[in-house]
Amino acid sequence: MANSLYDFGMIGLGVMGRNLLLNVADHGFSVIGFDKDSEKTQATENAATPGTTVKGVNELSQMVQSLKRPRKLMMLVPAGKPVDDVIESLIPLLEPGDVVMDGGNTHYTDTLRRVNTLKEKGIHFIGVGISGGEKGARTGPSIMPGGDVEAYEILKPILESIAAKVGDSPCVAYLGKGGAGHFVKMVHNGIEYGIMQLLSEAYVLLKHGAKLNNDQLHEVFAKWNNEQPSFLMEITKDIFLMPDEKTGGRLLDYIDDQAGAKGTGKWTSQDALDLPIPVTVIDAAVAGRNISSLKAERASAATLYPSVEPAAVANTAAFIEEVGNALQFATLMSYAQGLAMLQTASKELGMDIAMPEVVRVWRGGCIIRSTLLEVFFKAYTANPTLPNILQDADIAAIVNDKTAGTRNTVAYAATAGIAAPGFMAALSYFDAYRSERMSTNLVQAQRDYFGAHTYKRTDMPGTFHTEWNTY
Amino acid sequence: MANSLYDFGMIGLGVMGRNLLLNVADHGFSVIGFDKDSEKTQATENAATPGTTVKGVNELSQMVQSLKRPRKLMMLVPAGKPVDDVIESLIPLLEPGDVVMDGGNTHYTDTLRRVNTLKEKGIHFIGVGISGGEKGARTGPSIMPGGDVEAYEILKPILESIAAKVGDSPCVAYLGKGGAGHFVKMVHNGIEYGIMQLLSEAYVLLKHGAKLNNDQLHEVFAKWNNEQPSFLMEITKDIFLMPDEKTGGRLLDYIDDQAGAKGTGKWTSQDALDLPIPVTVIDAAVAGRNISSLKAERASAATLYPSVEPAAVANTAAFIEEVGNALQFATLMSYAQGLAMLQTASKELGMDIAMPEVVRVWRGGCIIRSTLLEVFFKAYTANPTLPNILQDADIAAIVNDKTAGTRNTVAYAATAGIAAPGFMAALSYFDAYRSERMSTNLVQAQRDYFGAHTYKRTDMPGTFHTEWNTY
Repeated sequence: MANSLYDFGMIGLGVMGRNLLLNVADHGFSVIGFDKDSEKTQATENAATPGTTVKGVNELSQMVQSLKRPRKLMMLVPAGKPVDDVIESLIPLLEPGDVVMDGGNTHYTDTLRRVNTLKEKGIHFIGVGISGGEKGARTGPSIMPGGDVEAYEILKPILESIAAKVGDSPCVAYLGKGGAGHFVKMVHNGIEYGIMQLLSEAYVLLKHGAKLNNDQLHEVFAKWNNEQPSFLMEITKDIFLMPDEKTGGRLLDYIDDQAGAKGTGKWTSQDALDLPIPVTVIDAAVAGRNISSLKAERASAATLYPSVEPAAVANTAAFIEEVGNALQFATLMSYAQGLAMLQTASKELGMDIAMPEVVRVWRGGCIIRSTLLEVFFKAYTANPTLPNILQDADIAAIVNDKTAGTRNTVAYAATAGIAAPGFMAALSYFDAYRSERMSTNLVQAQRDYFGAHTYKRTDMPGTFHTEWNTY
Repeated sequence: MANSLYDFGMIGLGVMGRNLLLNVADHGFSVIGFDKDSEKTQATENAATPGTTVKGVNELSQMVQSLKRPRKLMMLVPAGKPVDDVIESLIPLLEPGDVVMDGGNTHYTDTLRRVNTLKEKGIHFIGVGISGGEKGARTGPSIMPGGDVEAYEILKPILESIAAKVGDSPCVAYLGKGGAGHFVKMVHNGIEYGIMQLLSEAYVLLKHGAKLNNDQLHEVFAKWNNEQPSFLMEITKDIFLMPDEKTGGRLLDYIDDQAGAKGTGKWTSQDALDLPIPVTVIDAAVAGRNISSLKAERASAATLYPSVEPAAVANTAAFIEEVGNALQFATLMSYAQGLAMLQTASKELGMDIAMPEVVRVWRGGCIIRSTLLEVFFKAYTANPTLPNILQDADIAAIVNDKTAGTRNTVAYAATAGIAAPGFMAALSYFDAYRSERMSTNLVQAQRDYFGAHTYKRTDMPGTFHTEWNTY
């Protein structure tokens, strides 16, 4: 291969970069990867499938010079300054027409800035969300590109070959303008935060309420996963069974409860506030992780506030079914809020996000894949501008079927003293969203009272102000 | 007065600027106000208390030249670009040692930037939060300055004279470094969003649950205000009685429920996510306003989702008492979250916020004034570095007394289909915060499963990773 040029290049050979590069090679493309760390380039070459063409180099210029033109390369380096550093090093090495992808979890505003910088040099820069974890990167991730359509067309054969497949349909599509790829991936992760929080709430409700042990929890989650398969439900059922080598017990019981976060959940909540669009389940999930990190305060508070002994569950089977309803209901709200955020961003941020394509791409490969996505795909195919999937009749039927169980589960959590912020956020969002008349007429009255902010009336047009304290 | 110089100047004579300037004049200082709009300068002069010295001018340079040195002046113009525009016009007119206050709802990062720009010219720039609405501005607001201590000392006599008083104590103090003044005011407003949302939830629970009419609602809120006086409770009880001139009914029933917002609540939620510190009641309040603005979607959803007929309340008096408990409980959580945010910002953003002074200043004049602030003042005086007021034994006693009623109220709202996002956020925050062990061990297991994010253990030090799908 010494004199041949490579089809595809990767900058950054951490676990995601390596696996994605090997995935490209597995589909018949010759690939070259760059990393300063020679252990990583060596590990990449060693992990290559026999018969594939995989080269690792420790000089960026060497990699760039070894690529066919127009060059097609991706960077998978930590978001933020490292991306800018790579771009700065790349610019003198590239030529007009080359295509550079950022496959990391970059904030879309950074992507927009970089698109414009590189456009001046004739270089296509394209933000690409990639989901599937380290395993998915190698075997078929969900891929969310946006921005430059011309660049997408150049990349399409490679991206379609490496993406997860649902039937014959690859889980990749051009999703929208500007920073749409990274925006869609950010919201994907926000929804993921929501669902993970909800699964954890179902877990403790069953553990402390119905007193289920790990084997029983596994059975319940396995049953739920059979009824409505999803990746996160699938791994959760597995987690309950994982033995702990160190104690002979189950590993889950020994894992510390301080949850980490890498920023995409936080960004989803912050950007939703700017649009503005409510994503309260995601907010509750992000806050849940933040509360979890206040470990010392929690330990001290536990001594000041007596714990509640959960009321005995009268009918365990019925209780489990209601918790399952709540989990499905609230999971649907997490998707509904995230998708409504994308629909709003599509318009407000001028991204023209292809909603049917988004949910089609999410059907396979990604962390939030679920058979529910088929229902959403049907809804958005029928009406691509649907403001919220809760406005779809098929989805309304699913929701209405789960509402009573959700109400009982939330009521149980409230009285039993089991924290269920995600379930509660989902239910209160639903009850506000389905209200033609909310409580906020009082808020408008208060704002006008102390701040003369004015109000509108329900029975006539116009803007009004009242001197409240003169009656 | 033609040849005398004035003690104090105001830029921007909207209702807040005018009233604050007249307040300064009422305390014996000679004042001059600038506004381009001659109607506003005239209105300011006309509204002056007889015997006070109040001058209005339409040229900025004339105002600046008419001030005693070092000049003391405040701007009250809309946050954002207008503030920068005023500063740009001011710079050539000022001299080293002059003191400029921004009294608007500016984001603290803008204040920090301006402090540094003006410092280079020897001019003191100081961010000052002011709360009290238009009436409070004239009769005694709560004033929250931060930043340059030297500048604060120059302003102190004027600020102390115009501030609200609690006993002999003026509701103003130097609150911390950098942008602390505007940061404290932002969080004040965030707490305010929370409490307003909670009052609105209590309102609809009593209206739809206990079927109380406006007269009865007035009586309940008046009783609650007697038990624990606060400004927002006081105006809420008044609002129920306000007649509607147009229909002969009560005005509240005709006010549209789409709630407006001006940004400080949103900033509080966004900045809390950056720290990070959970402010879930404030998040729910901001989201509540955002849901309220989706009026057309709500009307359409109301047709898809059948409404729930709230269960009849068995004992109205007991129900009212429990809703009252929930309101006090959740209000306390809104304060606790906002104050914990200030304590965290004090450290993380290097503001050195004087927590006892913050709650002392909030006791009078501001929108969130309440007799509860006395309890907080006692707690922070005993321990100025208290991470959260929930760690104080006196506050724990109050909370523990209200918890059972809160649980029942949330359970009722859940089953009755009445949206209570603030009450639910408060309760789930509390139940997580008082848990030595949360559900998030599962989240850590999931993150390690699909993303190799590693985890810690409860029983031994170190960082671990497991190959989960190999058991």
